[in-house]
This record gives sequence, structure tokens and C-alpha cells, in this order.
Amino acid sequence: MAELGLIQVYTGNGKGKTTASLGLALRATGHNFRVCMIQFMKDSDEYGEVTASKYLPNFKLIQVGRNDFVNLANPEQIDIDLAQNGWRQAKEIIVSDEYDIVILDEINVALACKLLDLDEVLAFLKTVKKLPKKPELILTGRYAPQQIIDIADLVTEMQEVCHYYNDGTESRIGAEY
Amino acid sequence: MAELGLIQVYTGNGKGKTTASLGLALRATGHNFRVCMIQFMKDSDEYGEVTASKYLPNFKLIQVGRNDFVNLANPEQIDIDLAQNGWRQAKEIIVSDEYDIVILDEINVALACKLLDLDEVLAFLKTVKKLPKKPELILTGRYAPQQIIDIADLVTEMQEVCHYYNDGTESRIGAEY
Repeated sequence: MAELGLIQVYTGNGKGKTTASLGLALRATGHNFRVCMIQFMKDSDEYGEVTASKYLPNFKLIQVGRNDFVNLANPEQIDIDLAQNGWRQAKEIIVSDEYDIVILDEINVALACKLLDLDEVLAFLKTVKKLPKKPELILTGRYAPQQIIDIADLVTEMQEVCHYYNDGTESRIGAEY
Repeated sequence: MAELGLIQVYTGNGKGKTTASLGLALRATGHNFRVCMIQFMKDSDEYGEVTASKYLPNFKLIQVGRNDFVNLANPEQIDIDLAQNGWRQAKEIIVSDEYDIVILDEINVALACKLLDLDEVLAFLKTVKKLPKKPELILTGRYAPQQIIDIADLVTEMQEVCHYYNDGTESRIGAEY
């Protein structure tokens, strides 16, 4: 068995990025690993994972955003403050040795729209890579900056091949959030 | 809220296909949906999802393969028999009205290497599409045949951008199975 401690990225315009990381969390808890998911730019208990995470032992879910869409082109100060507070929490959690896997959900978007400082995040990730004990890190969200791709050990791009959204079908509870 | 009942496909050479479907199952159980995952060509309780699925209410996991790799180029008769028995079970489950979401895990591979008859599966899926009440169907696995892509409402292709396997890193418990 190889060790945990790599950096994985799920990005791209296709569906399944947060979902894949939730599936990873589900599997990992089945192996008694401790998982923490930090959701940037989200704060809603309507997400299925909020309820479902309570069923799983060793799975902690923290939402550090607010229950409103972030204006990606021109984010409000409150969104910047929330993301930066969330990132401070995330850093403590990552180095705490309390979790085997830490999922930074939507952090790629938070970086792309400059809620977080890319250079500072990269510097932290490089430091973490050198730690003898470190959790597996999963960074999700579209628009992953190239420097994040470069530092990752594994990058998966979800590509939309065909999608009913294009036919005007709306987002569906249970299947998508 | 739009209705369930679409056909989704997760395919491609990237990671995260089964994992994304497990995440979808996790979320859906958080909304009290009933989920059944049928795993073709698999039979091992070493998978994290086998243990974790027991934590979740309304999530049933059935493995219809055997605990050995299938020779995709030249499958053995036992693998054909197991897949076909599994498909018969799957059909009953799909029309039973007992589940809101049915995941046919690795069925794309089973179709691509002819463990199952593509025309028969397509004919069944077309019949299901016409049912007034039908579960959401999730078909996972690489090598999804073009006719499966064509009949799907949503297709996501997981593309491998960079992968530590290419550096010789072995498969890792908890993070990948």
C-alpha cells in the first residue's frame, strides 16, 4: 500500500467534481480514514452531502461560504473575507494531523476569482509537500489555475460531452446537489 | 425540482467514474432517495464502498462479478455468465420501483468486452425511457460504446491530465478503492 499525502485536482467544465470527491470520502471512511471536506463559497444545508455526512463516521464537513452565489467577475468583500477565514481554518486542519484526507471543495474557483491569493496558497502547498506526515489533499472546482495543475500529483479533468442543461433541463435535487 | 429518470454516463480514461457515482449516491441518500449500485465484474469486500455503504440508509450495493480481473480481450465463460446473471438482476431492480437511482457500475466495460449484448441492453434502456416512473440510471466505466453515449441524457468524460501512475506509484487503499 502506497502512502497518502498526494495532491489531487478535479477540474474542468463537466459534472462530477465535488461528487467525485464525496465518493472518495465515502470510500475512505469505509477504510476508517478520517476525512474533512471544507466547502468554499457554499453554506447551505440543502446539499445532500450535509445530511449524508452525518451518517458517516470520521467525516467532517465544514462550509465556509454563505448561502448566495458569488459574483465571480466582481466578488463582494464579504465573500473575500469568508474565503480567507476559511483558508486559515483549512491550513490549521491540514497541518493538524487529525485527518488523512482533506478536501478543499471549490478552492479552484476561489483562486481563479481571486478570493484567495494564489501565491500564498501555492507557497503553503509546497511547504505541506515537504512534511513527513501530511493528508491527501483534494482540490476541486473548475478554472484550476495552471500553477495548481503543475503542483498536483494527479489532475482529472471532467469534460462535458453532452448535457441536458443544454436542453434547458433544470438542476435536480438528489442527482446534483 | 425536475424529475429523476434520466440516463447518465461517466466514462473516459481518467479517474473518478465509480467514485463520482458513489458521491452521487451519498448525496442522494442525504435527500432520502433510495439508491442501488450494481457492480459488474467486481466482488471484493476490500472496496471502501462496501463497508461505507452499510452506514448509509437506503443504499444497497450488489456485486455481481468475481474477485479476479476479467481478461477483457478474451473473457472467460464464468465472467460472461456472472455478467449476464447480474444484468438480469439489474433489469428487475430497475423496473421494481424500489429505487430512485440505479448505478450500473462498470457496465460500459462489460458491454465493450461483450460480456453483455449491446443490442439487448440498448433495447431495454429504450423501453425504460418510456416508463412513466423510472429511476435515474448511472452507467459507469471506460470504453462506453457510442450507442450508449447516444442514448444518454448526460455524458461526462473523465480525462486524465496527469497521473502519478505514470510515475510508477501504485494504487492506494482509501484513495482509490
